[in-house]
Amino acid sequence: MTIYNPPVRDMQFALHDVLKLSKSGLPGHEDLDRDFTEAVLDAAGKLASEVLAPLNAVGDRQGCRLENGVVRTPDGFDKAFQAMKDGGWTALDCDPEYGGQGMPYVLGVATGEMFVSANMAFNMYQGLTHGAYSAIHAHGTEEQKRTYLPKMVSCDWTGTMNLTEPHSGTDLGMLRTKADPQPDGSYLITGQKIFISAGDHDLAENVIHLVLAKAPGGGEGTRGISLFIVPKYLVNEDGSLGARNGVSVGALEEKMGIHGNATCVMNYDGAKGWLLGDLHKGMRAMFTMMNEARLGVGLQGYACAVPAYQNAVAYAKDRLQGRAVTGVQNAQGAADPLIVHPDIRRSLMDQKSFLEGARMLALWGAHLIDKANAGDADAEGLVSLLTPVIKGFLTDKGFETAVLAQQIYGGHGYIEEHGMSQFVRDARITMIYEGANGVQALDLVGRKLAQDGGKHVMAFFELVKAFCKQHGEGPVGTDFIAPLKAASKDLQTAAMFFMERSMKNPNDALSGSYDFMHLFGHVALGLMWAQMAVAAQGSLDAGDGDAVFLKTKLATGRYYMKRQLPMTATHLARIQSGAEPVMELEAEAF
Amino acid sequence: MTIYNPPVRDMQFALHDVLKLSKSGLPGHEDLDRDFTEAVLDAAGKLASEVLAPLNAVGDRQGCRLENGVVRTPDGFDKAFQAMKDGGWTALDCDPEYGGQGMPYVLGVATGEMFVSANMAFNMYQGLTHGAYSAIHAHGTEEQKRTYLPKMVSCDWTGTMNLTEPHSGTDLGMLRTKADPQPDGSYLITGQKIFISAGDHDLAENVIHLVLAKAPGGGEGTRGISLFIVPKYLVNEDGSLGARNGVSVGALEEKMGIHGNATCVMNYDGAKGWLLGDLHKGMRAMFTMMNEARLGVGLQGYACAVPAYQNAVAYAKDRLQGRAVTGVQNAQGAADPLIVHPDIRRSLMDQKSFLEGARMLALWGAHLIDKANAGDADAEGLVSLLTPVIKGFLTDKGFETAVLAQQIYGGHGYIEEHGMSQFVRDARITMIYEGANGVQALDLVGRKLAQDGGKHVMAFFELVKAFCKQHGEGPVGTDFIAPLKAASKDLQTAAMFFMERSMKNPNDALSGSYDFMHLFGHVALGLMWAQMAVAAQGSLDAGDGDAVFLKTKLATGRYYMKRQLPMTATHLARIQSGAEPVMELEAEAF
Repeated sequence: MTIYNPPVRDMQFALHDVLKLSKSGLPGHEDLDRDFTEAVLDAAGKLASEVLAPLNAVGDRQGCRLENGVVRTPDGFDKAFQAMKDGGWTALDCDPEYGGQGMPYVLGVATGEMFVSANMAFNMYQGLTHGAYSAIHAHGTEEQKRTYLPKMVSCDWTGTMNLTEPHSGTDLGMLRTKADPQPDGSYLITGQKIFISAGDHDLAENVIHLVLAKAPGGGEGTRGISLFIVPKYLVNEDGSLGARNGVSVGALEEKMGIHGNATCVMNYDGAKGWLLGDLHKGMRAMFTMMNEARLGVGLQGYACAVPAYQNAVAYAKDRLQGRAVTGVQNAQGAADPLIVHPDIRRSLMDQKSFLEGARMLALWGAHLIDKANAGDADAEGLVSLLTPVIKGFLTDKGFETAVLAQQIYGGHGYIEEHGMSQFVRDARITMIYEGANGVQALDLVGRKLAQDGGKHVMAFFELVKAFCKQHGEGPVGTDFIAPLKAASKDLQTAAMFFMERSMKNPNDALSGSYDFMHLFGHVALGLMWAQMAVAAQGSLDAGDGDAVFLKTKLATGRYYMKRQLPMTATHLARIQSGAEPVMELEAEAF
Repeated sequence: MTIYNPPVRDMQFALHDVLKLSKSGLPGHEDLDRDFTEAVLDAAGKLASEVLAPLNAVGDRQGCRLENGVVRTPDGFDKAFQAMKDGGWTALDCDPEYGGQGMPYVLGVATGEMFVSANMAFNMYQGLTHGAYSAIHAHGTEEQKRTYLPKMVSCDWTGTMNLTEPHSGTDLGMLRTKADPQPDGSYLITGQKIFISAGDHDLAENVIHLVLAKAPGGGEGTRGISLFIVPKYLVNEDGSLGARNGVSVGALEEKMGIHGNATCVMNYDGAKGWLLGDLHKGMRAMFTMMNEARLGVGLQGYACAVPAYQNAVAYAKDRLQGRAVTGVQNAQGAADPLIVHPDIRRSLMDQKSFLEGARMLALWGAHLIDKANAGDADAEGLVSLLTPVIKGFLTDKGFETAVLAQQIYGGHGYIEEHGMSQFVRDARITMIYEGANGVQALDLVGRKLAQDGGKHVMAFFELVKAFCKQHGEGPVGTDFIAPLKAASKDLQTAAMFFMERSMKNPNDALSGSYDFMHLFGHVALGLMWAQMAVAAQGSLDAGDGDAVFLKTKLATGRYYMKRQLPMTATHLARIQSGAEPVMELEAEAF
């Protein structure tokens, strides 16, 4: 049985000492003082640790079952889902006009981290719903919003996103699902979609599918794609449920992990659908949710590793094996606890320093989305730049972190009994879905770097520069600002290399895209750690707050700067080797 | 259904063009000319690809079952095991006096790679037997050898190694299993052992357990440990099987992978056992097999990733998605194959350049063991130094490589259908068993570096230096020798840092041990690639051999030197940060 301790204090530090949430001038944020967010986070943490976490292993073991065309979720998921609805958690950051609580997105992300950490597969049922809610909220007609949103805010109905087809994954232009216009303004949707998370289940009365399909007249490739609302059960004028629609589950996939979530093959056989947003502008409608959706997966990537780390710490303190090389530390025991050994520390510090940096980056990204939603175009541009980094870097490193945590257990980590294998298997999907990480790197280097004339990446560099200038003195200057400057210089050199080369040979940039994403990730986490260090040192100097917590924060940050940030040099060297070593071989030579 | 193509040509290149096997002056090796080894490798490859590989997914899906105290292996394993025995593969490098074929270990490793690649879980049944064979061969009495070895060489009986107990893993000094001496010279063994691979099954008539236990009078800790032979069925004077011994399977573990191999809890309830080797010298007896056993797991680590890579290549050539940024390459298709995309290439080149380097290192290590077995003390010292590197680095990177290969498949890699998940799950164990990789790093830095006054690490540096001096000119000099020199310098700087610091604070060395293991691994692979480059360039210059193969070899090597070797700088920086960032926090602060 695994443990899960909600990291409320660490979140409070990030929200108030670093982001200074209630003073950030955002409408609605001024009420979010320490007491308020603590109450919200405590309550979410209680649900996560007491209700969701105990079902994590159950979901993994039982998985979902397809019985006579209906998907059955694991034991206990229904009651837990009801508890989540009853607590209003599904409505937290939704529009009050449709029953939401109108909280900012950053609070949704903070509570979301806990739900993911406790039970990632379970949380996807409401997570996907939130994505579909956002799409309808942004692009739906008044009638569509009235019809669907209140029920989706409460999660009486859940939502899905249907993009992938067997032959068409990243390349959506190839999709074949057809939408035939009907005289009444609706469409008949026909085709097969795969990898549909939460595609069907027994937790809600209805499932609202958002489906990408091609309606006549849209032209080739992605230009011909539109987005449709296709409910499992048709909805009557009065809001009650009508006939079963022509959509069914063809099969459930057997997966490496997230067994508790139903990954469905969905068959659309002339199912009734309604256009969402503009005809032939389906890709654009999908892309408006992209930042949120990808930040959500970045969140999953590290959140999955949070309990893995916590359990590894507990095991390292409990498990007696060997003696400290500097002298016995647990004389009354048969051996010292694992945590005395430097290499165990090295692993735990790698985990801890990544996870706290990742949390800060995810919350900063969410805060930027709140600003963007309030009309701040610079924030919108910056978060759009950071999104592939958040998604790609945090999921790669989150998986790596879960593997490190599993390793602490030795052989006990490899058997399923202790739950460490599940964390690793679950974390693995985050590197793949919502755009595989190679696609994130391509998005970053191929699109985001040059977006709006390179304005956003310049803004990021300016932000780092201004921050370094302001805080360059004192111990924080030596331990944090100096390495941040060096890492940021590596990033700028890499960006410059791409700019100089990519006109002549775009492969020079794309061959280094993955390394650039990681290089950027390290600089972003370096910036997060520098910001946290400034906040922690400030509180310490003022004699404010818990000194042990603040000193631990500084020590953890120093570890990141000293032992993780040097990776930027290797990424830069890889980038600067250009396309030749990557592209030299003929395909037949592999 | 996954594919597996035995890499015979690459092995032939390693054995003959680089190691120059038949000219290396080893007794018995002069007969191993190209034709002979090709025939052996072809035959092993045929068994691997045609018989073992098709059962890999079957083993994963079915796993083993415990039925009325007897372990049942997956469907088809029995016939495949018979085919392996009939082919004489279990006897390949065993002593002819006991029915072996007397081939060198290096050939056992080459064929072993194929068997592991094809079906790692299956191959463990004979792999563990080989380990037990070696122990009895090295330490058994004449009678013990006559009784057990012929049957173990043929795998009519299989073997196991019983070390771990629930509370005692790495720290074997804590083990509690007792050995009570009996008047007839035997012992009664009582205790519980866990994680016993191939602990029981239905593939052989008898299972010969080698068990670490404490006999009276040996003192505390590891000093009190002896090694015992405990057969499942007692063996009569005439060699026939007698009564069932007091050893039974308590349970089968559910694991993340290697489902086809039975990982057993073994209960010894006064089971009859016989001392193997000297009383109270059990650890020493175990350690004589350590180099072979750990090299065997290093082999598993990369061998597991070989078919993962091969399948990723096939998928990347077959799957159409997107268009090359430099212009359409597959005009008649709906899209270009994945392999046109630079980031897919980057991943495939990472995989290919690691795997071929790893193969070369494993074969070099095996060749050194052959030399050591022939009495070469320098070879013994060198391979003893390299063993933790081979085990730790090749398994970490092998797992990473399998993950990279899985990623090529996108969502299709996460579902179990395509077999990529199994490669990842299977590879994961190699980082853990036979000494978790953190323990390998400790062995390297805490023991091997200083062994015999640092003689072996100095010999390694001398070997690199002499090689660099001899081949420093020309294109190989620029592309291979120069980066190898730089990387080797990083390794020497790190070793020097440890020497200077470790007297004052051993934690300064141990905090960097893991990075040192990886730094060493990169230098070792850099040396392997430089050696392969010299061989390939030599053949090209002489107009000898397949020019396409040789040029591909050179290009793959250049990739490793340019894009992997720069990691040494990051590892060095981490090492040089010393113990403080690692050890600073109190245990309570985690």
